[in-house]
Amino acid sequence: MTTPTELYETHRELLDRAVKAARERDYWSAFPESPSKSVYGEDAAPSGERAFTALLGKTFPVEVPGAVGTVATERSPYGIELGISYPKADPLALVAAARAATPAWRAAGPYGRAGVAAEIIKRINARSFELAHAVQHTTGQAFVMAFQAGGPHAQDRALEAVAYALAASTRMPADAGWAKPQRGADPLRLEKTTTVVGRGVALVIGCNTFPTWNSYPGLFASLVTGNPVIVKPHPGAVLPLAITVQICREVLAEAGQSPDLVTLAAEEPGEGIAATLATHPDVRIIDFTGSSDFGNWLEANARQAVVYTEKSGLNTVIVDSTDDYKGLLRNLSFSLSLYSGQMCTTPQNILVPRDGIETDAGHKSFDEFGADLSAALGKLLGDPKRAAGTLGAIVNDGVLGRLTEAGASPSVVHPSAGVADEQYPHATIRTPVVVRLDAADDKTYTREWFGPVSFLIATDSTPASLALFVETVRAHGALTASVYSTSPDVLAAAREAALDAGVHLSENLTGGVFVNQTAAFSDLHGTGANPAATASLTDDYYVTGRFFALQSRHHVPAPESADA
Amino acid sequence: MTTPTELYETHRELLDRAVKAARERDYWSAFPESPSKSVYGEDAAPSGERAFTALLGKTFPVEVPGAVGTVATERSPYGIELGISYPKADPLALVAAARAATPAWRAAGPYGRAGVAAEIIKRINARSFELAHAVQHTTGQAFVMAFQAGGPHAQDRALEAVAYALAASTRMPADAGWAKPQRGADPLRLEKTTTVVGRGVALVIGCNTFPTWNSYPGLFASLVTGNPVIVKPHPGAVLPLAITVQICREVLAEAGQSPDLVTLAAEEPGEGIAATLATHPDVRIIDFTGSSDFGNWLEANARQAVVYTEKSGLNTVIVDSTDDYKGLLRNLSFSLSLYSGQMCTTPQNILVPRDGIETDAGHKSFDEFGADLSAALGKLLGDPKRAAGTLGAIVNDGVLGRLTEAGASPSVVHPSAGVADEQYPHATIRTPVVVRLDAADDKTYTREWFGPVSFLIATDSTPASLALFVETVRAHGALTASVYSTSPDVLAAAREAALDAGVHLSENLTGGVFVNQTAAFSDLHGTGANPAATASLTDDYYVTGRFFALQSRHHVPAPESADA
Repeated sequence: MTTPTELYETHRELLDRAVKAARERDYWSAFPESPSKSVYGEDAAPSGERAFTALLGKTFPVEVPGAVGTVATERSPYGIELGISYPKADPLALVAAARAATPAWRAAGPYGRAGVAAEIIKRINARSFELAHAVQHTTGQAFVMAFQAGGPHAQDRALEAVAYALAASTRMPADAGWAKPQRGADPLRLEKTTTVVGRGVALVIGCNTFPTWNSYPGLFASLVTGNPVIVKPHPGAVLPLAITVQICREVLAEAGQSPDLVTLAAEEPGEGIAATLATHPDVRIIDFTGSSDFGNWLEANARQAVVYTEKSGLNTVIVDSTDDYKGLLRNLSFSLSLYSGQMCTTPQNILVPRDGIETDAGHKSFDEFGADLSAALGKLLGDPKRAAGTLGAIVNDGVLGRLTEAGASPSVVHPSAGVADEQYPHATIRTPVVVRLDAADDKTYTREWFGPVSFLIATDSTPASLALFVETVRAHGALTASVYSTSPDVLAAAREAALDAGVHLSENLTGGVFVNQTAAFSDLHGTGANPAATASLTDDYYVTGRFFALQSRHHVPAPESADA
Repeated sequence: MTTPTELYETHRELLDRAVKAARERDYWSAFPESPSKSVYGEDAAPSGERAFTALLGKTFPVEVPGAVGTVATERSPYGIELGISYPKADPLALVAAARAATPAWRAAGPYGRAGVAAEIIKRINARSFELAHAVQHTTGQAFVMAFQAGGPHAQDRALEAVAYALAASTRMPADAGWAKPQRGADPLRLEKTTTVVGRGVALVIGCNTFPTWNSYPGLFASLVTGNPVIVKPHPGAVLPLAITVQICREVLAEAGQSPDLVTLAAEEPGEGIAATLATHPDVRIIDFTGSSDFGNWLEANARQAVVYTEKSGLNTVIVDSTDDYKGLLRNLSFSLSLYSGQMCTTPQNILVPRDGIETDAGHKSFDEFGADLSAALGKLLGDPKRAAGTLGAIVNDGVLGRLTEAGASPSVVHPSAGVADEQYPHATIRTPVVVRLDAADDKTYTREWFGPVSFLIATDSTPASLALFVETVRAHGALTASVYSTSPDVLAAAREAALDAGVHLSENLTGGVFVNQTAAFSDLHGTGANPAATASLTDDYYVTGRFFALQSRHHVPAPESADA
């Protein structure tokens, strides 16, 4: 057995570095994003693939307390047969097991818990290739993206949550002396102790598209602050979280803790286990990523819990002018294409003055801009192999349906097309559709069209674009916003507009940074200030609601009895 | 005009010291609690009294945007005629004025806002004697307590909230550079800016018994994090908050800000302005102190806001054994008597094994303990003048009603009696009642009996007392708990029980520290971990929900264009 305290000592340097990075918010990453042999070793890729293949067609080996039977609910967007089944959870048994595991976890203290968490994340990192295959074949992400976003980037976000949880839960000193001066008498003296106590059972509800990246922050923030965690995966993306839970349980048991501190809640689709768990009186923390419908339901109904949701919104681009027209088109077309727009951060509404914009390549009319954006998409996605690596596959029928609906519009600027994949002939791969709208068409563009659907919206002017941006994002939310302008006044106005709308802003991205990507330890994801999310990955608000600081106090023993 | 930034520079040393005290949580106080001439000056007491007297029978001079007419709702528990009226608020006008004032306040930044807050608190401190009279004649607190709890102690809690708000809202750097290494190319470089944005209009709902102490933390936490604040006083205790709002507005205007950042919402009793404001879509933060009924209503209905409530509960004392029996009796009888038990922290349920306890004065049976506690109360309150100074006056008829109801019990251990006051012949002053109950009488003792009503409850044993303590506090809440024992095992079990119950614990208080008193910068007040309160005064959780950190990011300009 390696105790939590010993694990803390083992990973102390990593944790200290992570806390420093979270404080300074400059560039730092603990886990290399390159799936190369020079980084992960000669055998990492093939052995990860073997590990994944060995899971196919079997019951996944993870213990679930009180499980009855199995469920198999996944299908690969790349068309391969998965056939993996999982123990079917009994929600009441999971809650009971979680509660029983809690007291020893409370006693482990924040440092011990952070040590356990760091060990878990390191072991997750060691299985990045296996996880990459699991993410690819449940989400439809192309392999390299599945490796990066589902592996090291998710691990960085996990470690970031650990760092915030550790820093916040140790900010109040565990012991403090208090001596109040008294006129003509000795001071009143007390010794005070502060103990971190978790809020209660935590529930993490995963999504279909980013099962690890979006679940890890809540999982690790709750765990480090003293809470047991029930992990409820999306029925379409169980495997990446099943592997994660398996690793958590293995490390917890080795550390002398109950493995039931982290359990897997797999269900048949439509069984409603998330709602059952979310309204259980002992479930006190909920992290959710997914649809606004269920997120809003959770916020309204899970009254006994603190609820952190990341839902959806109207990610907006304001185009005013540019001194790098090619860079703009290249950057924006890649943002629309990456993972077929199935990122919660993909731009949907592109606001352009109907009179056109000024660029380093001269004035561009609204229609010219649309044609140039379409040409840029064509260039980016012209080669099928490269296109497949950027687009990945369509995750489910809901996305396909919206793509078809948008494609039927009379004002398509760039039509969607199918792409063939050499390796996976049954993969469902589509290029994005871009549709021209007018500012008056708010019924269309104030809905979220999750997937590869974007709108080029003609506005009266850039100030009108900014006003529309503030109004729509305040009402419907957004996770990202970006602006292109050469005017310092417009940029200043866009910054104020983004503060009013409550969304983070990217300015003039024309190079290798994209509005839909955020870096752990530096970029916040979500704000809480608009309806798309209730909190930000990661800041103090995201972690401080997960624990309580409880004090005890007593008089300092008189000196003569101090050594009694 | 003195700008917010200049005010920050003026008070920088005080703010730095406060942030340090909040971090270290040892003894520190910014504002002397002694109402003596040597501290506050020869003329402070008489001039404070003159200022108070000058307010009687008039309309209080505070501007309220959109006010129509006036209201006069206060009566002194000491029987003097107040006759002060206040502008009657129009809730929609207050919200509109608050919103209009917000943008310039956001632009002032955390340091500027903390500077303004520090200036306000210093001016409040300078009017401590005037405020003491205002608190005495609205709450019934005796003068010295009204001075201390309503003045310097409340000011310390205000400064503590400022310190937490300032530290939390400046923890993320305002500017950060980010440089991501690229293989075979220059690093990707971004500059990132973080701006603190308030959540929205804040509402502070005051209580009748501690109008300043309980309102200041929320008021200042919201203000410093960038929010305008509407202060809704209890109709029975308007004056202390009207003076506070007057000072806020004066300082804000002098700092070039809109005074409507802080407004007073006075109403006729029963008008329901608190509920109207609390459910307004623009009201996004609520701080409430008062009854569980309305607190629970707010938590259930003010869905658009973060809600911080401090309600009521079953403050519990577990008596197991002592090596200072006289000290225990002296300390406990004072805790029951101070301000006639009208503190949210006064012990209600005193759990004693029915077989009695071991003490340094020999074994004491349950009945002997009751008789000795009654005798200690008699000794403490035997002299009417000293009794009046400890008890203060009964704040309202609700308290009197409960006192009468409890006094009619067949098992009164210590009966309540009236006390005459020399200075205020019409004051309503009563000593506490103590009633004997059995552990089976849970219907009686699981209700909160706010006021000078306590129960001596016979249990089967100390382990039974601890189990009863955990069960009742988990279900009904508590703000305080204390234990008396000479056994390290019992103390350890009591600490675990307090962690399970989610309440702070005081151990073996026999001297000059009382369970119902907490010191700013060191003792937390409330926990969030039981139903009595949703948060703690003051920790990071109490402040982090009041603001958002919004980022903007852009590429670093290329060197050749940096000075363009």
